[in-house]
Formats: sequence, C-alpha cells, structure tokens
Amino acid sequence: MTNPTVIELALDLIGRPSVTPEDCGCQTMIAERLQAHDFHIEPMIFADTTNLWARRGSEGPLFCFAGHTDVVPSGPEEAWHTPPFEPTIIDGYLHGRGAADMKGSLAAMLSATERFISDYPNHRGSIAFLLTSDEEGPFINGTTKVVDTLMARNERIDYCLVGEPSSTQSVGDVVKNGRRGSLTGELRVQGIQGHVAYPHLGENPVHKAAPALAELTQIEWDKGNEFFPPTSFQIANIQAGTGASNVIPGELYVQFNFRYSTQVTAEELVKRVHHLLDAHGLNYQLDWTYNGQPFLTDSGSLVSAVTKAIATVAGIEPALLTTGGTSDGRFIAKMGGEVIELGPVNATIHKINECVKVHDLQQLEQMYYHTLKELLA
Amino acid sequence: MTNPTVIELALDLIGRPSVTPEDCGCQTMIAERLQAHDFHIEPMIFADTTNLWARRGSEGPLFCFAGHTDVVPSGPEEAWHTPPFEPTIIDGYLHGRGAADMKGSLAAMLSATERFISDYPNHRGSIAFLLTSDEEGPFINGTTKVVDTLMARNERIDYCLVGEPSSTQSVGDVVKNGRRGSLTGELRVQGIQGHVAYPHLGENPVHKAAPALAELTQIEWDKGNEFFPPTSFQIANIQAGTGASNVIPGELYVQFNFRYSTQVTAEELVKRVHHLLDAHGLNYQLDWTYNGQPFLTDSGSLVSAVTKAIATVAGIEPALLTTGGTSDGRFIAKMGGEVIELGPVNATIHKINECVKVHDLQQLEQMYYHTLKELLA
Ligand SMILES: [Zn+2]
Ligand SMILES: [Zn+2]
Repeated sequence: MTNPTVIELALDLIGRPSVTPEDCGCQTMIAERLQAHDFHIEPMIFADTTNLWARRGSEGPLFCFAGHTDVVPSGPEEAWHTPPFEPTIIDGYLHGRGAADMKGSLAAMLSATERFISDYPNHRGSIAFLLTSDEEGPFINGTTKVVDTLMARNERIDYCLVGEPSSTQSVGDVVKNGRRGSLTGELRVQGIQGHVAYPHLGENPVHKAAPALAELTQIEWDKGNEFFPPTSFQIANIQAGTGASNVIPGELYVQFNFRYSTQVTAEELVKRVHHLLDAHGLNYQLDWTYNGQPFLTDSGSLVSAVTKAIATVAGIEPALLTTGGTSDGRFIAKMGGEVIELGPVNATIHKINECVKVHDLQQLEQMYYHTLKELLA
Repeated sequence: MTNPTVIELALDLIGRPSVTPEDCGCQTMIAERLQAHDFHIEPMIFADTTNLWARRGSEGPLFCFAGHTDVVPSGPEEAWHTPPFEPTIIDGYLHGRGAADMKGSLAAMLSATERFISDYPNHRGSIAFLLTSDEEGPFINGTTKVVDTLMARNERIDYCLVGEPSSTQSVGDVVKNGRRGSLTGELRVQGIQGHVAYPHLGENPVHKAAPALAELTQIEWDKGNEFFPPTSFQIANIQAGTGASNVIPGELYVQFNFRYSTQVTAEELVKRVHHLLDAHGLNYQLDWTYNGQPFLTDSGSLVSAVTKAIATVAGIEPALLTTGGTSDGRFIAKMGGEVIELGPVNATIHKINECVKVHDLQQLEQMYYHTLKELLA
C-alpha cells in the first residue's frame, strides 16, 4: 500500500458532498486506511450522525486527531467559480466546499499519521482519530456522545489536536489553545396588554425592561485575562408587539448570548443577570442554555510540541489565541487532557469559493507529522 | 309619512350586517327619510366606502349630525346570546352589533331630526348628516374625504355632533369635547450584523439604542392641561434578530405611538425625538405617520346647547372629557367649527353581546332633539 499524498486525500474527501449530518463515506475511506495501519476501528452511530473512533496501540499517552467530515451547505452553486463538490486546483489553490473547514486538515492528519507510522512503527503511546459528521449542525449526536462513551469506559485522551482552521494569514500563525464558554438566556418580561389610548390600564413590558436592557449592555463582566478577551454580552433577538400600532404589548421576548472567559463562571453570570432584573422590579421568566464551558490549555507537552513543529516547518512562532466561536474542543476538554486547534487559514470558510493553498496543506501535513514525532517518536 | 320611533329605526339599522366597509343600505334608508323632509341628498362614494352628505336649508349656521353606518365584525356568532345581526330586546336592553356603536345614535339622530322638523318646519340655519361606512376601518375614504370635498367648495360646518358612544354609566354623563392627537413613529436603527463570537466586527443596534429607548420611555412630554391628560408615549412593536442565537442583528425596528395633548404639537414631538436619537449618536431612519391633530371645543354655543339638553332630559351635568382613542371628530374639527361627541354608554362596544338600554336610546333621541331646538328653533 503506497501512501497517497495529502492533496490526493483532500481531493477524495472534498469530492464527497457530505453536508451535515451526511458523511458520504468519508469516515469509511479513512477507517480503511487506518485499519491497514493497525488501528482498531470503532464506528459510533448516534441517530443521524456518523462518528468514528479509531485507535492504534493500547498504552499511554494517547494522542488524538479530532475533526469533522461534514461541511456546511454550498449555497447557490452557480455563484461558485468551480463546482463546490468537484475539487479543483487553480493557481496553487485547492477550491471546494470543505477545503479549509476541514477536509484539508483530515487529509493532512491521515497522511501525517501514515508517514509517521511508516517511519516509527514502534512509536510509544497510542494514536487515535475522533471524527464526527455533525460538527456544523446541532452537535448533539457527535463528539459529545463519543466523549461520553470514552469517559464511561475510562478511556482518556491525553493530547488532542483538533483540525479546525485556526490560521489567519499563513498556516500555523495562530493556534487556538482554548475557547470561551457560551451561555444563552431567553428572557420573557411580562406586562399587561392594552390600548395605547389607555396607558394607565396597560403595562408596557418594553418600557419596564428598557432601563434593565440598557444596563445589561453596558456592564463590564470581567476584564478577560492573558488568554481570554473580556466576557461579551450580545442581545441576538428581541420581539414585542402584535403588529398593530395602537396596542401595548403584553410580553417582551429577549434572547441574549454570553461568550465568557475563564475569569467568570456560567453560574456567576446567571446570578448577576437575575440580580439586575430583580433590582429593576421586572416580572419575568428566564431560561438558560449552557452551550459549553470555556477551556484553556495554556502550557504543557502538546503546546510545546505543536509550537516546535510549526517552528520547524514554517519558521514562525504561533500566537496562542482563544478567540472565535465554539468548537468540539470544548467537549474533548471535559476529559481533562490537553486540547489545541491547528488548521489552515480560515479566510474563506463557510463562504462561496472556499479554498486553501496547496502549499499550506502540505505544510500542515508536516506540522502534524512533527507534532506526532515530538510526542510519540 | 308617520315618523317611526327611535327603537324602530335602530332595529332596522342593526338588522343590516354592515361590517366595514359595507353599508348594506343603511345610508339609503336614512337618505330616503331625510329626502322626504326636504334634505338635499348627496352620496359620496370613494373607492370601497359609501358616504352620505345630506343637507336641509342653505343658510347658516350649519348644524351637522355625524356618524358611521359600519360596525366591527361580530366575532364568533355562537358566543353571542342573540344573533348579532338580529336585533333583540331582552329585559329593556336592545342587543346586536352596532347597538351602541353607533346605529342606536343614528336612529336617535334621524328620529330627533324628523320630530324637530315636524315641530319647527321653518327653523333657522341648516341641518346636515355626514355619514360614512369606514370609521371602524382605515378611515381613508370616509369622513376625511367628505370634509375635503366640503372645504373645497367652502361649505363649512358650524356645529357638529358626533354620535360616538361617549357615555360611561348613564347616557349623557360624559360628552367628549375633544380628542388627543395621534402620531406614530417607525424607527430603524442600523448596526452591523455579525457573529456574537466576534463582537468587535459587528455593531449591535439593540445595544446602541437601548439607552435611548430607556430615556424615551421616561420623558415627561408635558403635564397635560385642564382638558387633556399628559401626552403619552408607548412602544407598540419592537423587533431585531435573525432568530439565531449566535448572530448580532443588523437592524432594530421600533414602532411607537404618541397620544398628545394640545400642550404640544406633532412638530415639537418629532423634533424632540430626533434630537434625543441624534444625541445618542444613533445611525437611524425614522418615518412618521400623522394620524390626527388633537382638537378641543372647550366652550361655545354647541357645548352650551348640549349641556342644557342633557340637563333638561336627564337632570345631570355632563363631564367634558378628551380621553380615549381617536374619532372622526378630528377630521371635522379641521373645518374650524365646534365639535362634540355624545352617544350611548360604551361599556359593550366592539364586544360580544353589544347592547344598549332602550330607555337610554329614547333619552338620547330627546337630547339630540333639544340640542337642535337650542341651536336652530
Ligand atoms: Zn470546522
Ligand atoms: Zn364608533
């Protein structure tokens, strides 16, 4: 079995239209190659979601590549320069949906692993792949359920490298070493519906809530820290009114979201919001959704290995950042190991004409190879 | 031609299901009776709306009864004790849609006019009827267009009695001698849509606007005056957001309504709101709808005549109030004459089982008769 190049593997994966929660055989292709390199293959199907847990070796430490085979929809195909699911290389760029998020990374992981095993067949520890087909979707039946399964049997990942596109200008310039937590509140402020001509008979919940909302938007929740920007509060949705211009609304609905640092806990934020609403004397109902705790891998063997690998391959030192949205890293971090994210430049992800530099993927493959070498050779 | 009683006329009118903008022959019935009493009949049809201008005499002063033949929908008929368009008298109450708003008043106007002309065939001045079939609707093709037509030919109403149900406990206890103005604003605050994870790349219009909205809800616009309650501001509708919890909305929509006294003008309110929004540095668009100027008839021959008529018939002194919603009086007031509203008890208007006391209608007919007598005998 000859090892295909990272580009050959990327072309194969991008050609499969695996829009969430579809996998389109991506994981089977990867699993077959890993099996040939002595990985134990364990598909984990939860409802509509295809997941793969594959492990080579039974010793610690356990190094894991994590990622997703699903992609976001292409949008209108006619808006693309090249068909989104027919990967095409033009002027040194590989075009296609998933090229950057994150089939290019999967190809690099697979290629790096195959090369590493060829070079170091008796490496120490274990290597694993944790793949899901619902990272871009509701993330209910994906990584979180695989993690639950592993934790239930005391299988623990020590080092996890998530292939999310972390880079901004050139591959390796940014490594994500954590993510903020996400907390959503749904607030319903009760008033009394009435006619605007008789304001004393009604009670306008928008008027009652306006000062509280103004205050919420102006609070400094924390100052952030060395690794996290300050916690941010954003009102995402607000609605009140029947549509008629002469009716005082009976209820105000406000949905807001916190992205929070490790300087606060979700519990503290919840308490502060309730305290503020109570202080304003509002009659309200407030429901919370805990989307994910913040996590941080500020130092350790994994950060050192990845930093060294990037320096070796690209001669640069990565910035360690925790910015951006949530990722499946938050689920894996629950296991207590070290988690970082390293992947291609994210400029075109989720957009029309998503693409990645061919040379970047080749460098990424080498960075993954050197990371394995640092930790397990 | 024998004059029918007010109750006979009310039964005829309520039996016609003239839901806005339908008239169902109400105006034809009234016009035929008025024509027999030497009124000049002038139907004025504008689009879907039937209007009637009928005038007896060519001299001044011109006294006018104004009202509407349309009614609001009945709602579920099975919820009524009696069929809404089959007027029924039970225990001294006349039941049916429009009994109080305002077919009872129309019957009283017609009966009073017929009796007055029989008693005073050579009365001074002129008597007119201004009827529309869209008072409960969009009021675009009704009274306002009739007024425009009259003003264009320099025909001017000196005294106008609108038959809206002004009374609260017993007929004649309240006369409306004015109405507040109504002004609606539609505010669109621009922000920059973005992802909640990157708040520095977006600009949340809800956050930008919240302090301004809080301030708007707390302003004392005026203190009202002897005849008007203080001007009130109410947010009727507010909306922002895509529905997703992770998107910063790009625009905030707020619709609000002023009910304003004669202590301020619409122009002053508009200026103050713009000033406030500008002071908050908002990027916004604000569209105004002028629903009607406030009007006030605080004294004069009409108020004296009506007050005296109520005292004669019921032995009470009416309260002169300007509370409640808008009415077609605002359009007639533009002509510069005296305008008041006197009609039945309004407890059941627009509701299931609308009804009016038979005795109240008989008293109302006498109040109208005595008003005519005071002014034109
Ligand atoms: Zn991704
Ligand atoms: Zn009415």
